[in-house]
Amino acid sequence: MSTQLQQAVKGIVTPELKEVAGKEGVDADWLRREVANGRVVIPKNINRQFPARGIGNGLSTKINANIGTSEAHCNFPEELEKMKISVDYGADAVMDLSTGGDLHQILKNILKESPVMIGTVPIYAVATRLMREGGKIEQIDPEALFGEIEDQAKAGVDFMTLHCGVTRTSVSFLENDERVCGIVSRGGAILKRWITLNDTENPLYEHYNRVLDICEQYDVTISLGDGIRPGCGADATDRGQVAELLIIGQLVDRARERGVQVIVEGPGHMPFDQIEMNMKLMKKICHDAPLYVLGPLTTDSAPGYDHITGAIGGTAAAVYGADFLCYVTPAEHLCLPDANDVKLGVIASRIAAQSADIVKNTGNARKRDYAISKARRDLDWEAIFLNAIDPETAKARKDASQSSTEDYCSMCGNLCAVKTDKGLELKK
Amino acid sequence: MSTQLQQAVKGIVTPELKEVAGKEGVDADWLRREVANGRVVIPKNINRQFPARGIGNGLSTKINANIGTSEAHCNFPEELEKMKISVDYGADAVMDLSTGGDLHQILKNILKESPVMIGTVPIYAVATRLMREGGKIEQIDPEALFGEIEDQAKAGVDFMTLHCGVTRTSVSFLENDERVCGIVSRGGAILKRWITLNDTENPLYEHYNRVLDICEQYDVTISLGDGIRPGCGADATDRGQVAELLIIGQLVDRARERGVQVIVEGPGHMPFDQIEMNMKLMKKICHDAPLYVLGPLTTDSAPGYDHITGAIGGTAAAVYGADFLCYVTPAEHLCLPDANDVKLGVIASRIAAQSADIVKNTGNARKRDYAISKARRDLDWEAIFLNAIDPETAKARKDASQSSTEDYCSMCGNLCAVKTDKGLELKK
Repeated sequence: MSTQLQQAVKGIVTPELKEVAGKEGVDADWLRREVANGRVVIPKNINRQFPARGIGNGLSTKINANIGTSEAHCNFPEELEKMKISVDYGADAVMDLSTGGDLHQILKNILKESPVMIGTVPIYAVATRLMREGGKIEQIDPEALFGEIEDQAKAGVDFMTLHCGVTRTSVSFLENDERVCGIVSRGGAILKRWITLNDTENPLYEHYNRVLDICEQYDVTISLGDGIRPGCGADATDRGQVAELLIIGQLVDRARERGVQVIVEGPGHMPFDQIEMNMKLMKKICHDAPLYVLGPLTTDSAPGYDHITGAIGGTAAAVYGADFLCYVTPAEHLCLPDANDVKLGVIASRIAAQSADIVKNTGNARKRDYAISKARRDLDWEAIFLNAIDPETAKARKDASQSSTEDYCSMCGNLCAVKTDKGLELKK
Repeated sequence: MSTQLQQAVKGIVTPELKEVAGKEGVDADWLRREVANGRVVIPKNINRQFPARGIGNGLSTKINANIGTSEAHCNFPEELEKMKISVDYGADAVMDLSTGGDLHQILKNILKESPVMIGTVPIYAVATRLMREGGKIEQIDPEALFGEIEDQAKAGVDFMTLHCGVTRTSVSFLENDERVCGIVSRGGAILKRWITLNDTENPLYEHYNRVLDICEQYDVTISLGDGIRPGCGADATDRGQVAELLIIGQLVDRARERGVQVIVEGPGHMPFDQIEMNMKLMKKICHDAPLYVLGPLTTDSAPGYDHITGAIGGTAAAVYGADFLCYVTPAEHLCLPDANDVKLGVIASRIAAQSADIVKNTGNARKRDYAISKARRDLDWEAIFLNAIDPETAKARKDASQSSTEDYCSMCGNLCAVKTDKGLELKK
């Protein structure tokens, strides 16, 4: 079997590529060239079947929802329900970040049930097992990590976050450039501690070819994790973050040379005015690799509302280069998200993606907005609900209002600008 | 009595100016010069007493919450409750947009109870009375409009939205440049219809000096309303919008010459990539007048979530020049907001203002974010809640979670990046 990238390089238009081109309304041969040069990826493990989606240049912005059990709260049916909600509200991908219960069984079930691509962070499973056995982080066996990556690839995982850029070099740039929040990536914190206490190199970096071997075999897309991402606005764009980015850029090239699909993860927490510069820097350093961002959150002062903060930063990021937005829920920084948090997180990310796609003119974003705008002018409520990101909520609000049976809404009541402007008679 | 502007021109540091300078941490004489040249306003009717706030260049971004009865839903205690919620969550201003019940009595009570500046749109009261009497919009008597403005000024209104820029000239630019949504401003729609059917000029423009007479006498700040603002993304930055802006720019100069404080209202609905340009264009054309924006909403596809869409656009607007954000609630485009909508709308606007103030380095935004970031590193939950925009919600989420008594949160559980990075022992 060859990867989507390898086939694109050979000039083959795969069924998956054709499917993506049709969905996005782009020319299949143009898309093939974008996949061949790595500006677009189509994450899909050779062992899974589901409708393919593309991520990258010229395509609509995609969004990911994180689900997963934790040690304190482990209820698989609940996580399955969260996955269904995510997909129903428009998530293009789901990451299983479980750390509680039988991790392999949970992943297996999720892979079986999911109609969208599935991502993981394999080091979580390794660290969880170690902690259950009472071990210390620095005792992680590199062989266990590679074993886990291989097991998950075989099981059908479509993309994996691997913090290969947390190296002795990148970590060294954290010295003498003090951070407020240190490291906030779980994978990054584990690997930095491992490197430091063992006085050795990150195995995912040192033995990157082993990673590539596995990912090539199953066409797993590598998501190069930003383990040194800023954990608060004040730490954004510091030397540690940029040093890791430089190494990630080198690893992008090596993945492409091996025919392995690769995307790059980005911050995190970031003041609004640094987002454009960061996206452009990341695209440049990583030779136009698809960018996958978490947030970025434009303020740290809104715990309980980080889906809003993430939508602000996510819109700006996607306008300036991000191709894939990881959702942030209202539970971020506070607790494990429940089903309602998942819904609100996905919707906020969809708003960000839609806002950016209007600018980029990708997918059907402009057509959708036009349809709803026209319906407002026509006071055509059914068309408004039909085109809304969350039709049920919009309809429920209107239906419950005092003007539920009127063509206008109860905000302006009879003194309706649309009716006045159209010269419609206003009732007494 | 002189206006704040007139006194600033004379070199007087008024008690209000001193109060604002102290609150913002800026030099009083610098602020006096900004008020004198019109780049900052301090809206405060001579007949009211409350802690003054400034709006404009170099100051923290302010936010406004709209409240008010409607014909379909008229319950004054409920509106009073909304006002209290708005102020509690950080609104710097409240606009009374009531169109149901005894309008003068409602306004009088709001002016009495409010600890913040109060704004109105006087044409609403005039149009409401006319409709109650079964009249048609085009029958509005200009004398009734000026009478209403004067009554409200006497009563103590601090700022008034007046759509003086909806003129024969600006309306003419709507011809041959077709809009999807036409006019969506209630004041704009009324005045356009009035101008067109009566074949005459907007009295607020033609007799602008009468407006200035009244506003000078009571130090009412004029908010030049954008009656021709775009009502959907597709209509943004069209000739009609810009034509009105040019007239508004001229009216800013005339207000300043008369010593009347003035701010300028802006869109509305606008694709993300047009926000920066619009803010810069507005500031330039209006000679650096403080800008007051509604949204802007970066997509029309999210009814039920327009507080999020507004926070996205509002952040960008405030970063690029807006000084004053009008909140948008989840009820926008659907129904009259209830108390919870008001809370969510104010919080979303506060997130936008905070995100922008971090960039502009105004107020205490950076200090606040730093405090909460540091508290996260220290796992100091009390300090996190203390500095949060909505402390109760943040605390409630953490307290209800499975790790309510732990120093970490239930999202990552024991596998906590902060603890790992600090080298703290993780529990088995």
